[in-house]
Amino acid sequence: EEKADVWLPSLITNSPQEGFELAIKLSRMGVKSTQSSKEVLFRERAKYSQDGEALTHASEVIAVNFQTVAAANDYWK
Amino acid sequence: EEKADVWLPSLITNSPQEGFELAIKLSRMGVKSTQSSKEVLFRERAKYSQDGEALTHASEVIAVNFQTVAAANDYWK
Amino acid sequence: EEKADVWLPSLITNSPQEGFELAIKLSRMGVKSTQSSKEVLFRERAKYSQDGEALTHASEVIAVNFQTVAAANDYWK
Amino acid sequence: EEKADVWLPSLITNSPQEGFELAIKLSRMGVKSTQSSKEVLFRERAKYSQDGEALTHASEVIAVNFQTVAAANDYWK
Amino acid sequence: EEKADVWLPSLITNSPQEGFELAIKLSRMGVKSTQSSKEVLFRERAKYSQDGEALTHASEVIAVNFQTVAAANDYWK
Amino acid sequence: EEKADVWLPSLITNSPQEGFELAIKLSRMGVKSTQSSKEVLFRERAKYSQDGEALTHASEVIAVNFQTVAAANDYWK
Repeated sequence: EEKADVWLPSLITNSPQEGFELAIKLSRMGVKSTQSSKEVLFRERAKYSQDGEALTHASEVIAVNFQTVAAANDYWK
Repeated sequence: EEKADVWLPSLITNSPQEGFELAIKLSRMGVKSTQSSKEVLFRERAKYSQDGEALTHASEVIAVNFQTVAAANDYWK
Repeated sequence: EEKADVWLPSLITNSPQEGFELAIKLSRMGVKSTQSSKEVLFRERAKYSQDGEALTHASEVIAVNFQTVAAANDYWK
Repeated sequence: EEKADVWLPSLITNSPQEGFELAIKLSRMGVKSTQSSKEVLFRERAKYSQDGEALTHASEVIAVNFQTVAAANDYWK
Repeated sequence: EEKADVWLPSLITNSPQEGFELAIKLSRMGVKSTQSSKEVLFRERAKYSQDGEALTHASEVIAVNFQTVAAANDYWK
Repeated sequence: EEKADVWLPSLITNSPQEGFELAIKLSRMGVKSTQSSKEVLFRERAKYSQDGEALTHASEVIAVNFQTVAAANDYWK
C-alpha cells in the first residue's frame, strides 16, 4: 500500500474551505489505507451514501481531520 | 463535488451561538461531501431524525466541529 | 430551525458543575438542530434512556462538549 | 434533574489516579443527566457490563473525560 | 471498585512505546471500572478479539488515551 | 503481548505523509495489542475491508492518531 506518489505534501491550505477539502481527502486516504481496491470503495460508497447513520459517521471522521487541519493553519487567522 | 461557491469563508463568528450554527453547517457539509443528492439527504434525515441513537450521533459530530470553531474564536472571550 | 432567542450567550460559567450543565445543554441543542419536534424528542428520549449503550453514547457527546466548555473556562482555575 | 448538591466542586485532583476516578464520575453523571432512575441504571449496567463492545464504549467516554481532567491538572507535572 | 493499590502513579513515561503501553492500560482500566470480574473480562475479550469492528473500537479508545499521554509527555521531544 | 522489539522509537517524522503512515501503524498496533494472532487479523481485515461502515471506523481511528502525530510534529511547519 506504500503510496509512491506524494499525496500529502503539507497541511497548510489557503482557506478554511480548502482545509475542509483536505480533511475530506485525509478521511478517504484513511479508508484507502485499509482497502485499496477502487471497485470495493465505489461499491461501498454507493451503499453507505444511501444510509443516514453511515453518512453521519463519515462526517465525524471529516470533523476530526478538520480539527487537525484547522489547528495546523492557526484557524486561518 | 468540488463546490464552486465559497461556503466557508472563515471560522470566525460574532458569538458562541453563531459558532454553534457554523458547527451544524460544517457537519452537514461533511455529509454532503459524501452524498450530494438533496433527495437522498432529505429522505435519510426524515428517517434518522426519528431515531434517538442517530440524533445522538449527529449531535456528536456537531460537538466535534463546535470544539474546532470555539478554539478558532478563542472561546469568544 | 433558526432559534430567534439567544440560548448560548457565552461559554463562560461560574463553576465546573455549571460548565457540565452547559455541556448537557449543548448536546441537547445539537439533537434539536436536527429534530425540533418536542414530541419526537420526548418519545425518543423515553426509549433510549432505557438503553445502556444509548445512554453511554449520550454521555460521550456531553464529554466532548464538556471538554470544549472546560477549555473555554481555563478549567476554572 | 437539576442536582441540588454540589458534586463537581473542581477538576483539580491530587494524582492521575484520582483524576481517572473523576473521569469515571463525569462519565456516570453524563448518563445520569439523561436517566436519573437508579433502578434503570443498575439494570442497564448489569446488562452492558456483560458485553465487550458496550464496555469498550464506556471506556471511550472515560478516556475523553480523562483527557479533559488531565489537561485541567497540567498532567500532574 | 475503589482500587486500594496505586496503579497510575504518573502519566510520564520514558518513551513513546511505553506511553502507548500506558494508553492500553488506561483503556483496560476504563473497562475494569465498569466490570471488575476477571472471568467476564476474559470471556468478552476472547469474543470481541475475534471481531474486526470490536478490535477497531478498542484501538480507538487506545488512540484517545495515547493522545492524552503523548501531550502529558510533550511528545517525548 | 509485550513487544520485545522497539516499534515506536519516536513520534517525529519527516513529512505529513510519513506522519499519516505512522498514524496507520499506531492504529494497527492498537488492534494488535488486543489480538496478536496474524491469522485472526488477516481474516478480520479481509472481512471488514469489504464493509463501508467498518472502513469509516478504521479511518476514524487513524484520524485520532494523526491528530496526535501532527501535534507532536508542530504540523511540520
